[in-house]
Amino acid sequence: MSSSESSSSPRMRSYLAAAARFRSGEDTPRAFLERCLEAYAAWEPKIGAFVHTSFETARAAADASTVRWRAGKPLSAIDGMPVGVKDIIETATMPTEMGSPLFEGWCSGWDAAAVTALRDAGAVIVGKTVTTEFAASEPRGTRNPWDVARTPGGSSSGSAAAVGAGLLSAGLGTQVIGSIVRPAGYCGCVGYKPSVGAINRGGSHDYLSQSSTGVLAATLDDAWQVAIEIAARVGGDPGYVGLVGPATPPAANKPRRLTVLETAGWSVASAEAKAALEAAVARLGASGVEIITRRSHAEVEAVEVAILESFAVSTKINDWEWRWPLNSFHERDASKLSRAMVDRLGRAEAMKVSDYRAALAERARVRGLYAALASLCDACITLTAPSAAPVGLATTGNPIFVVPGSLLGIPALALPLLQEQGLPLGLQVMGFSEADAELFATAAWVTQALVDQAPGGLDD
Amino acid sequence: MSSSESSSSPRMRSYLAAAARFRSGEDTPRAFLERCLEAYAAWEPKIGAFVHTSFETARAAADASTVRWRAGKPLSAIDGMPVGVKDIIETATMPTEMGSPLFEGWCSGWDAAAVTALRDAGAVIVGKTVTTEFAASEPRGTRNPWDVARTPGGSSSGSAAAVGAGLLSAGLGTQVIGSIVRPAGYCGCVGYKPSVGAINRGGSHDYLSQSSTGVLAATLDDAWQVAIEIAARVGGDPGYVGLVGPATPPAANKPRRLTVLETAGWSVASAEAKAALEAAVARLGASGVEIITRRSHAEVEAVEVAILESFAVSTKINDWEWRWPLNSFHERDASKLSRAMVDRLGRAEAMKVSDYRAALAERARVRGLYAALASLCDACITLTAPSAAPVGLATTGNPIFVVPGSLLGIPALALPLLQEQGLPLGLQVMGFSEADAELFATAAWVTQALVDQAPGGLDD
Repeated sequence: MSSSESSSSPRMRSYLAAAARFRSGEDTPRAFLERCLEAYAAWEPKIGAFVHTSFETARAAADASTVRWRAGKPLSAIDGMPVGVKDIIETATMPTEMGSPLFEGWCSGWDAAAVTALRDAGAVIVGKTVTTEFAASEPRGTRNPWDVARTPGGSSSGSAAAVGAGLLSAGLGTQVIGSIVRPAGYCGCVGYKPSVGAINRGGSHDYLSQSSTGVLAATLDDAWQVAIEIAARVGGDPGYVGLVGPATPPAANKPRRLTVLETAGWSVASAEAKAALEAAVARLGASGVEIITRRSHAEVEAVEVAILESFAVSTKINDWEWRWPLNSFHERDASKLSRAMVDRLGRAEAMKVSDYRAALAERARVRGLYAALASLCDACITLTAPSAAPVGLATTGNPIFVVPGSLLGIPALALPLLQEQGLPLGLQVMGFSEADAELFATAAWVTQALVDQAPGGLDD
Repeated sequence: MSSSESSSSPRMRSYLAAAARFRSGEDTPRAFLERCLEAYAAWEPKIGAFVHTSFETARAAADASTVRWRAGKPLSAIDGMPVGVKDIIETATMPTEMGSPLFEGWCSGWDAAAVTALRDAGAVIVGKTVTTEFAASEPRGTRNPWDVARTPGGSSSGSAAAVGAGLLSAGLGTQVIGSIVRPAGYCGCVGYKPSVGAINRGGSHDYLSQSSTGVLAATLDDAWQVAIEIAARVGGDPGYVGLVGPATPPAANKPRRLTVLETAGWSVASAEAKAALEAAVARLGASGVEIITRRSHAEVEAVEVAILESFAVSTKINDWEWRWPLNSFHERDASKLSRAMVDRLGRAEAMKVSDYRAALAERARVRGLYAALASLCDACITLTAPSAAPVGLATTGNPIFVVPGSLLGIPALALPLLQEQGLPLGLQVMGFSEADAELFATAAWVTQALVDQAPGGLDD
């Protein structure tokens, strides 16, 4: 394996694909983990995906998993899977620093809901992955494994980079603007932002009304399996039924119709990115899927117009909902907050409750328009970003293509099926609220239809 | 004051009533606090309302408040108000033990949203008040100041007992079954459970879908003022507009019609309790308010039938939503959980997602029936419990009259206007979702109409 790790091209590591050989002992969870740790040794110094690691605990957990697989009694399909936890999510035995010097060394002493579920399912927690400050915009130095001069995207920067380079099979992420789907697109892995409420966010410090905990993974199947194992153990957010669907990854299902959404991003996307999407759409059309657009359907045009202001509306909602705890952080030590966070608090405190109420009403209106598309098509497709990851680490890239999915509260997937400048760019597939399994089935078919355009490779 | 503190009858302590004399210097927040601390010295050994206190910090805060009032620049109408914080809600400088040995000495290091807001409004945090284990049913020894052989109710046991005996003007509480309105009724103080979502629950470990953070206070005005000052600073839960209303307590407003709700409690209420409610209803009727009941209106009968199973439906919902973190607590150290909590986890893990979905659907159905009453009446009235606080500390009393308000997600108030066995019993006034200010206006009128029946007294 070492030779492949020293090659320049990142290779992802599907756990489900490997697990077929665990029962026979031909491969083991421990050996799988060691391959991840070799990748860690080769890549981590270049990409900086982790804040904390826990290798000895991980090795012990992988050994225990190896015994269970050999006995034919794995705790779940992800028993032994090496996973990372975005550092906005609490872990009992590792600090949760939230990308902020205010929380240096802070440890709550308990596992968040998703982490509890992962451990109960036998998953191996390898470490905490880098998040931007409070899962917002301020980067924390992680680099893109496809080109270390570029951002991996954010805020789930570390999970995206680590999965993209095969240090992990999956990582937990969170998204309130574009924090799962965009970095997954930049790093060439699968990103799954569930419907709002689908995965229990208890113990995740990302408790805004449109945020979701989700998964970055080597494959669509790995992403589904992680999500459904979590939901089976800890459910969704209080008041939500939570993710419901098959106990194994949904089978590919050919859609009847797909809607191409331009979003506000189309006007700033690179010619190459647009051409890549158009070529994919043409292939899907050639496979017999009807494609509809803003030009063919007034209902689509209405959605395109409605989502133009997704970023502005989302930002208003998030600003208001961040008043606390930002005000308490500011009182504690303003010098440890980024300029962006101090500015956000200023905006938040200048808002009136009527501004927030208006933003919630606008969000509800846009959600209503989008929901009506469900009678017209099986899913929507678009890009995950205007181009491949931009050069530089000062920002995490433009969320313009992904923020509509966050505002809408719908499930959205980044599929590593396009390229731009020879680098990964995600195809985004957007579904309908609480129909996450149906989205996976459509995305599985889309992946099959387009798979030979994938930029990366799978190594296990 | 000492002489009154040594008397056997608890006396509550309204801050708003006292604050009129702060500008002139005739009275001061520091002197007010000292009266509370005298009451603490007299009562705390008998009632055990506090888990932690912070008197020196409180005195310094009261002195700073005194300076602001004298300068004519209080931070808010509750600047200097001595308040307690239910120990399920995080505080930066005191532990948050949640009534559980699992959290002995645990300190998150930050203030919950409501606590941040209280401090920003100038309120003086005197200490953490006793909660039952995880704000559920296991009592933690607090006694009722009206009769120390009796329970103060729960789960907001300490806030109710401390406010009822004048150790504080107000205390934060939380309610998911009956944890604010019931103990307030038993302890002779005002209890305010807001509409679901009205007060930001960030940092409160009571994050179930039908729980609310609310206020126990000496008077209706004190309760409103505390709640609106919190909402003005940190809003409601993410996704909710939060408590909206006047910056000062709503003026009394005579209702046109009130509905008397029997609830499932009527069949177990004492004859004296029923007679006390009926006498109050008769007085309200004599004041010109039209009274309607299940016998006069089919819509009321439909609600009476629908809320009969409030406890069972609420318990199913809460059990499911408690799977996490209970499963992680159980893994950490099952010996530190009460039998009731271990049993709850067993029930929770035996549930299927379809059970939870059915319970949510039933809750939505009941809420719809109740909401229809808004076109018929201004508010509903009933008891807060079947009798005065029962003798013994092994349970916190029967929540049968208050759980419908929790299931419904509506605002509900306990008013200290009735008696049973010579002890306090609350009159419960229930409003309509997100119409909390209207409920206060109705309740203020009801209080005026019935006030000479109040069991306790107010001191300054």
